[in-house]
Amino acid sequence: MDSSNASASLTAMRNLPAGRRIELTDSTGHVWTGSIVPSHALSGPRIVSLKLESGYNVGVAVDEATTFREIDDPPSPRRPEPRSPSARAMAVDDAWIALLTTGGTIASRVDYETGGVRPVQDAREILAFYPELESSGSVRVVPVFDRLSENVGPADWLVLAQRVVEAFDGGTRGVVIAHGTDTLGFTAAGLSFLLADLPGPVVLVGAQRSPDRPSSDGPSNLEAAAAVARDRRLGEVVVVMHAGLSDDRFAVHRGTWVRKMHASRRDAFESRNGPPLGTVEGGTVHLLPIVRGPGPGPARVEGPIDERAGLLWFYPGLTPERARGFSEGLRGIVVAGTGLGHVRSDLIDWIRSRTQAGVVVAMTTQCLEGGTDPFVYATGRALVDAGVLYLDDLLPETAYAKLVWALGRATAPADVRALLAQDRAGEFLRRHRPEAEV
Amino acid sequence: MDSSNASASLTAMRNLPAGRRIELTDSTGHVWTGSIVPSHALSGPRIVSLKLESGYNVGVAVDEATTFREIDDPPSPRRPEPRSPSARAMAVDDAWIALLTTGGTIASRVDYETGGVRPVQDAREILAFYPELESSGSVRVVPVFDRLSENVGPADWLVLAQRVVEAFDGGTRGVVIAHGTDTLGFTAAGLSFLLADLPGPVVLVGAQRSPDRPSSDGPSNLEAAAAVARDRRLGEVVVVMHAGLSDDRFAVHRGTWVRKMHASRRDAFESRNGPPLGTVEGGTVHLLPIVRGPGPGPARVEGPIDERAGLLWFYPGLTPERARGFSEGLRGIVVAGTGLGHVRSDLIDWIRSRTQAGVVVAMTTQCLEGGTDPFVYATGRALVDAGVLYLDDLLPETAYAKLVWALGRATAPADVRALLAQDRAGEFLRRHRPEAEV
Repeated sequence: MDSSNASASLTAMRNLPAGRRIELTDSTGHVWTGSIVPSHALSGPRIVSLKLESGYNVGVAVDEATTFREIDDPPSPRRPEPRSPSARAMAVDDAWIALLTTGGTIASRVDYETGGVRPVQDAREILAFYPELESSGSVRVVPVFDRLSENVGPADWLVLAQRVVEAFDGGTRGVVIAHGTDTLGFTAAGLSFLLADLPGPVVLVGAQRSPDRPSSDGPSNLEAAAAVARDRRLGEVVVVMHAGLSDDRFAVHRGTWVRKMHASRRDAFESRNGPPLGTVEGGTVHLLPIVRGPGPGPARVEGPIDERAGLLWFYPGLTPERARGFSEGLRGIVVAGTGLGHVRSDLIDWIRSRTQAGVVVAMTTQCLEGGTDPFVYATGRALVDAGVLYLDDLLPETAYAKLVWALGRATAPADVRALLAQDRAGEFLRRHRPEAEV
Repeated sequence: MDSSNASASLTAMRNLPAGRRIELTDSTGHVWTGSIVPSHALSGPRIVSLKLESGYNVGVAVDEATTFREIDDPPSPRRPEPRSPSARAMAVDDAWIALLTTGGTIASRVDYETGGVRPVQDAREILAFYPELESSGSVRVVPVFDRLSENVGPADWLVLAQRVVEAFDGGTRGVVIAHGTDTLGFTAAGLSFLLADLPGPVVLVGAQRSPDRPSSDGPSNLEAAAAVARDRRLGEVVVVMHAGLSDDRFAVHRGTWVRKMHASRRDAFESRNGPPLGTVEGGTVHLLPIVRGPGPGPARVEGPIDERAGLLWFYPGLTPERARGFSEGLRGIVVAGTGLGHVRSDLIDWIRSRTQAGVVVAMTTQCLEGGTDPFVYATGRALVDAGVLYLDDLLPETAYAKLVWALGRATAPADVRALLAQDRAGEFLRRHRPEAEV
């Protein structure tokens, strides 16, 4: 089947089931082969999302000149994501919040056969583990997926963002997302960029100890997260975790400022550069005036994403050959450089060749605190001359999440750079909390 | 010229000038083409160090079956490293310390034409900037090289290690190395593994502000570093930098525990996991009892190194293809995984293929604090099964430096792993400071 009418073509593609393989020829003549990704997760009216054979998800702009044909392979046997039967059918109820579960330690228990930690399999079991969740009002559990967070990536951010929008559309006051802690910071940053016009809080929470252990931080973290999710002053993506080792003080971190800074401690999460946005103490939520308030709604997902983004940490032995091997096929690269944002001089020519080829190269600092500055040393000036965009005080991980989002939203490198440079979710700390030179 | 007598061959090779190109056939029949690296920097009696065409330095074991021939290209026009005329001729003087300079901000000043920071060109200018250096005794300046630290790598660690040994051979009480801060932590770790039997302290020091600015931290850092270098209780590689923002309190960090944690603050350097080994306050050095004391000497360099080592930071979009492109040709890879030491499940098969091919794969945590543990989650157990060596609480950067050293010291993967797993420089924090689970 061929079609050359844009809207008919788009409608026809949208009517294909998720997973159906197509070959799409865009207006530049480029041919994309891949499987349809559920399009309701995407807000762009003229964007089709494909999972390419390489495993990447891309958003392809559709216009008058776009054609496509179905490829007759059977759809992939991949099991569909479990969906909440009630997500759309929820009645409006001012007091309830949604709990989205994704797996991870917070939804895990020890498997006494292997001695390892295994996911809890259903929503009832989670409420059984966490009775305190409903202490301040009703909670509706929406299982989204079930995996350890090292296996949660950008495509999952998009699924989660859509579930968040569905929960707000259904009338929830706020959303709690229970998530493994390993990549919780990455997901919090990804959601910060993907979600817009939030009418209430989106609170990511995890546990460093599984819920069947007496020392588990899961119950107290969840109770604090639920309190924050009910707070009417907040309209942004945050992370709530222990602020110390005791079970009565919790920190509220901005989703783009937070990083897991300890492998095992309960207070592993830290806001870098800026302070936490607030605390929860004795069940009371305290917030700084810098929090972003709720919007009028409706919440929206501003996708799509493009995973042809890389995060490259510099080290003294990094050669241009190795950097080249790493970045094959990427549209954008975030470099975690040293100090104010530097790399070895012999990498600069390679970087120039990349930016001249239309790759967006952005610089952050592996110090994880303080801002980059290209104008102090000769190396920084040479990197700017080679086309590197300096991202001020963004964490490398936050910059990576923003790049995945910006590459999905824009095609021309200049437009991607403009999106990266613009504050979207309060992520540029220095613009929100001016700090004297120290 | 060909030679098949091992010791004659080795002697002949050792007599070649640094930079001379040779083609060496080792006992396995492998042919190495490269330039001779000064062999006095290497402690192995039957090892020849070559800089390969790829730019890597390798140590090749020489035995009865080794042959080589000179390649008649003219030696590389590379300018020899500047050497201190006095390094060998220094009289024994109980009070003096050596100051090795390498470039970086601490040996830089603002270039008023460009507004950028440029290196100070000679030793006299350094003493002119830092008169306080000689306040507690005489200092002999040994310029080693002159570059910003983003351009200092493993081959330079070897050169510095040799200069340290020469200074101790010449009778210095201790050594101060003035170094750019960007990669100071890497160099400190590299020297910690390369140097053995130190009869006194080796103190790395840097500055976050250039010495011609009134706010420079260079003078006070250097003065504190000189005090530590004179301390008779210490026989290890440490870093001395501001412990806070005031100019009267400095921290002494173990070289394998320290990391630059802020892009610009004067107190950017932090010991991770463990405490600093001590402080300098009001000119007095306070040390914890865990410091490693001086050895009887003589100091030795235990090289060679092998730069076919990589440091790969995990992020949620890292695919096996990208990891493969990054690690082409490597003998060892340090992974900075999430949490207790995890990566996406779909990377595990690729890791197994690497370890089966003889590549050493070691795991650290990108949290930068706390230890790895493969036995809590299924992912960790699968990684151990795939042949990954867990490196407890080593910083990723320290693990990389140790890998560069271990690959130079051993050929068989099992021997490299044994070296990595063994405590050499007090680098495994938990073995030195047991900590309760929190």
